[in-house]
Amino acid sequence: MAPRTNLERLLAPKSVAVVGASAAPEKAGYQAMLALESFAGEVFAINPKAGAVLGRKAFPSLRALPQPVDLVIFAIPAAACVAALREAIDCRCGGGLIVSGGFSEAGAEGALLEAELGRACRDSGFRLLGPNTAGFVNKEISLTASFLPSAERIPSGRVAVVAQSAGINLTVSFLLANAGYGVSCAVGLGNSVDISASDVLEFVAGQDATKAIALHLEGIRDGRRLYETIRRIAKVKPIVAFTVGQTDVGDFARSHTGNLLGPYALRSSALEQAGAVLVDSTQDLALAAAALSVARLPAKLHPGIGVITAQAGAGLSMLDLLKARGVTVPSLASSTLESVARKLPPMTYQQNPVDTGRPGPSFPEIVSAVAQDDNIDAVIVYALSEPAALRPETSLPAVQRAVTKPILFGTMGLREEIGETLGALRSEGFFVARSPEELAKAASALALDASRQARLSQSQATALRVSSASLPEAPADEHSAKQTLESLGIAAPRRVACGSHEAAHQALRELQKPVVAKILAAEIEHKTELGGVRLNIRDSAELEAALAHLDAIPLTSPRRYLIEEMAPAGLELIVSGTRDASFGPVVVVGLGGILAEALRDTATRLAPLTLAEAEGMLDQLRGKALLDGWRGSPKLDRDAVARCIVALGDFLCQQPRVREVEINPLRVYPSGVLALDALMSV
Amino acid sequence: MAPRTNLERLLAPKSVAVVGASAAPEKAGYQAMLALESFAGEVFAINPKAGAVLGRKAFPSLRALPQPVDLVIFAIPAAACVAALREAIDCRCGGGLIVSGGFSEAGAEGALLEAELGRACRDSGFRLLGPNTAGFVNKEISLTASFLPSAERIPSGRVAVVAQSAGINLTVSFLLANAGYGVSCAVGLGNSVDISASDVLEFVAGQDATKAIALHLEGIRDGRRLYETIRRIAKVKPIVAFTVGQTDVGDFARSHTGNLLGPYALRSSALEQAGAVLVDSTQDLALAAAALSVARLPAKLHPGIGVITAQAGAGLSMLDLLKARGVTVPSLASSTLESVARKLPPMTYQQNPVDTGRPGPSFPEIVSAVAQDDNIDAVIVYALSEPAALRPETSLPAVQRAVTKPILFGTMGLREEIGETLGALRSEGFFVARSPEELAKAASALALDASRQARLSQSQATALRVSSASLPEAPADEHSAKQTLESLGIAAPRRVACGSHEAAHQALRELQKPVVAKILAAEIEHKTELGGVRLNIRDSAELEAALAHLDAIPLTSPRRYLIEEMAPAGLELIVSGTRDASFGPVVVVGLGGILAEALRDTATRLAPLTLAEAEGMLDQLRGKALLDGWRGSPKLDRDAVARCIVALGDFLCQQPRVREVEINPLRVYPSGVLALDALMSV
Repeated sequence: MAPRTNLERLLAPKSVAVVGASAAPEKAGYQAMLALESFAGEVFAINPKAGAVLGRKAFPSLRALPQPVDLVIFAIPAAACVAALREAIDCRCGGGLIVSGGFSEAGAEGALLEAELGRACRDSGFRLLGPNTAGFVNKEISLTASFLPSAERIPSGRVAVVAQSAGINLTVSFLLANAGYGVSCAVGLGNSVDISASDVLEFVAGQDATKAIALHLEGIRDGRRLYETIRRIAKVKPIVAFTVGQTDVGDFARSHTGNLLGPYALRSSALEQAGAVLVDSTQDLALAAAALSVARLPAKLHPGIGVITAQAGAGLSMLDLLKARGVTVPSLASSTLESVARKLPPMTYQQNPVDTGRPGPSFPEIVSAVAQDDNIDAVIVYALSEPAALRPETSLPAVQRAVTKPILFGTMGLREEIGETLGALRSEGFFVARSPEELAKAASALALDASRQARLSQSQATALRVSSASLPEAPADEHSAKQTLESLGIAAPRRVACGSHEAAHQALRELQKPVVAKILAAEIEHKTELGGVRLNIRDSAELEAALAHLDAIPLTSPRRYLIEEMAPAGLELIVSGTRDASFGPVVVVGLGGILAEALRDTATRLAPLTLAEAEGMLDQLRGKALLDGWRGSPKLDRDAVARCIVALGDFLCQQPRVREVEINPLRVYPSGVLALDALMSV
Repeated sequence: MAPRTNLERLLAPKSVAVVGASAAPEKAGYQAMLALESFAGEVFAINPKAGAVLGRKAFPSLRALPQPVDLVIFAIPAAACVAALREAIDCRCGGGLIVSGGFSEAGAEGALLEAELGRACRDSGFRLLGPNTAGFVNKEISLTASFLPSAERIPSGRVAVVAQSAGINLTVSFLLANAGYGVSCAVGLGNSVDISASDVLEFVAGQDATKAIALHLEGIRDGRRLYETIRRIAKVKPIVAFTVGQTDVGDFARSHTGNLLGPYALRSSALEQAGAVLVDSTQDLALAAAALSVARLPAKLHPGIGVITAQAGAGLSMLDLLKARGVTVPSLASSTLESVARKLPPMTYQQNPVDTGRPGPSFPEIVSAVAQDDNIDAVIVYALSEPAALRPETSLPAVQRAVTKPILFGTMGLREEIGETLGALRSEGFFVARSPEELAKAASALALDASRQARLSQSQATALRVSSASLPEAPADEHSAKQTLESLGIAAPRRVACGSHEAAHQALRELQKPVVAKILAAEIEHKTELGGVRLNIRDSAELEAALAHLDAIPLTSPRRYLIEEMAPAGLELIVSGTRDASFGPVVVVGLGGILAEALRDTATRLAPLTLAEAEGMLDQLRGKALLDGWRGSPKLDRDAVARCIVALGDFLCQQPRVREVEINPLRVYPSGVLALDALMSV
């Protein structure tokens, strides 16, 4: 048996000590002791002043304990934490959690204290949760390490909650409890001075009880590691993620856990790319994780959802929501339609959705027929509570036993009336929802998860690696940047870099007319604004006039010109690659032009990425119709764009010295692309 | 006392008869009788074959009754309904409701039956709910007219539900019941052959018990009337609306209530413009209506929400949601900040949101301080259930009594623990929520409602009426269309309509160069595609060449040219006015160019509209930054665009013969606009 790591000692301890244990009920140190009442392992109270806490003898210090405990809960003020932590390290305890705030979220002084905590952990290998967290619950060992004792009564379940915010951790856990699902584990990270979401994800993914993970994040400091972790874990256990910051809430966020939020587009794109299903509220986080903990679909790019409803209005709302989320609601096979038609009166809608009208005795058979359809991967069934017409708790389990595809059920009625129905179905292993939209959201989560998994499983197969490119000498000018792009397989217009007017005239003779004359100097970033780009040059007189204009631009470096063939008209994109401090190499593609910039119509991914992922970026653009044969014009070469994106990403990954590359514009044609301008900073 | 109309007899009857009353529990005619058990008025069973139903003597027909009843519930098959309806009309009953389907939603035969029902109602003044509806509940008179007997147990409340779909009506009513709010009235419209949403809105708005209205709509046949009705009622009682069809669900929708959906953008814009708060699920419909039934803010364009939270993570999520919905979360006054600072430890965030950390004894005082801030119009308070630290049910009511602004409370914890807290607060008149996002959504509903009411109250004051314009003779060509626009105060470039080359050359001499030469013929809609627009003409040689090109375009009407001064470069918009079959005159504004078209970046409103409403359309454009001084360029003349939109709308309203007007493009400058091209169809 492998030795237990300190993270395991912390999150699955055999012994726990509470430093600051108190006999005063309003104190966190009392509540924490109370919450440990049902823990089967050893519990020690540490308090130099108290004789006993909740019937347990209080020890004056950790040193006074008969043994090094696995987990230490520090329920003491921030200022006292560093010394207490050192003592725990000296005593060879496994790990600790600090509930108090007053660290980096509270200003410079707190940040210093927090940095000391971090150093002590790094030097010793001691693991620390928080500071500034309400703690965690591990139902596998009936442990509630928290100053919120009611957390102890959250039932055991199949969802692990991992939340940056302790408050969100508890909110989501209670939502899961009240919906009848419970948790396997629920961890609030707080300021994450040592233990990050990635660490805890590894731990909960290894728990037998955990079937799905609900993840809440604010700022992400180790974005790349988190990305890799989710990518690995999501293959085994589904992950639903909720991250705030769609609007500018950065100031408050920093005050919360001391973290910078960073751009939402990057965070959310990275989470989805890694394989997580994204939601935007605590309720949807609990809902989607609960659904995925009960029923995960096999990996499939476009899984089909079958919709059966006894109320057409509810069916319409579900269909609308599914379609808006890009979930496939396929036509049923003709054999299914025939089978459904035999069982329903002709006035009902018998496509997908199937509207049964008031449920009759054939209702279970209809569910069964739809579930057996080859186009369908999961079935959702909504029916208002009408016990006189339908008893889903008696009819649906038999249907479910006979088919492999999950059936999700939703209903509404007076709470006392539906409670029993839903409870019975839940204990039979069904996911149950309390409105049409909750049901459709649950189905969306299943479908999106299956789709992400399919995409990730393709990754290895189709990953495209460009040949290593030679870096331009720094600083790179447009010509050398384009040479690098060409070595990556990204075409640029034919051109000649010239050191004199004579050379420029020679270039004009050799190139196809018309040409463009540009000033060529790494020191100039915005050529066009300075009049450094002269278009439509056809003869030497025009060239001479153009060069005269370029010569009027002040320069410190030697004067050079780029004479380049003018590219045919086409759709313009911007493709760029940057290096993010948290997430590493990132590529962005967007439509070009000021309108697109104003509309911020872009897609973001972490590099490296596959051709399919790059194609997916284009699908995400609101203006994607322009690529696909807009108004009778020919379809443009999406594949060439995707190759360009992939190559730029690979380049960034292979050349850590490159800070940024931007192609603006990349002109797109029915066949091929051309990089009309390029910037590279090394 | 005014005589009761037939709609009042139907929805607030003193006597009810069930045609098709049955002793068989599986029949709708039995369930409908069961649901009437607690009705205090007279109830009659009609069935020629049954002796008695649920202890009531069955009459063979309506004619056999001792009196004309107010409401007849038809629980019989579609085919029998026309004859039964005629009998009810002959007996001078007030109104009826038909529960069965099999009418226009089920095909041609059903549509004929439905048309007969409609005719019979129109001829007689008899009012009919449905067909294809589960009926309604009127708690003011304890009446449940439905085949779903559990509807009888929905508690009395302050929200009226008016739903196209009977299933949505019940789903929303049960959601309101389970959340502890109940309904005043709940009506499912079904196919709406006679009674429409507008009719029922008038009725429920007149109920004393109704404090807010939850409206669900699919297709809207009388859009203009509904718009006017909501506009009138929303001033008195807040309306929350949910309408499906963000994606293409039209086929299924038609099968549901026989209605065409029409474009979602038009429907949703019209509802918001009329003063409704839009939501997109049954849950949010119940939530927002419940919140508004408890607390409506006075009309104010930008009401401020104060956010107080004991958990920063929850506060962040609420702040993000409020900002994403455009709700103002203002800075607190310095006096408030000082007062808060005295009550909280320094490590907490003390802006708006105020993060209290674990609630202490000063928590109620903090709520009170924020509520008294002049920048704040409503306060939301979120705190996890921690009875040891905070008892909101004992502390908040006193705070609320001392301030006029509403305080909304949200919490989470184990159901049994929070149930009592929430119930106590609800009975004290608080709105209570069960997650941070529910709380923020409720506050959004209050803020958006107040904002819409403020906008509507401005309408009368600033409404701008253009002078009546003379219509061009049909068919209108570009020149006459522009003349009409000019008479509306919308500028177009200087130009001359010419019947010959000589006239064109004369125009060239008179106009400022360069000019454009266009083919001028009402028969040609897409000049540019045909080569009918020649730009940049500076001299007579260029003009002659241009005219030669224009002369090559085949025409049946006499050949004419439009010689026009070229307009300076500028941002291009498209502004159009059309006449919708349901909603009447509609104006649309969008960014010009193919990219904007591909992105469908447009805003829609019903005409006539005010300058402020037209300005609001520009704010709705995703690319609005381009109007407001993009990248250092000057701000563009929003006011001139707004005047153009208003004028086009007024024109459509005043000239019912005009089918469509389109200005494409409308070029926008720092001062003024120019209509570069115009189409008008009469």
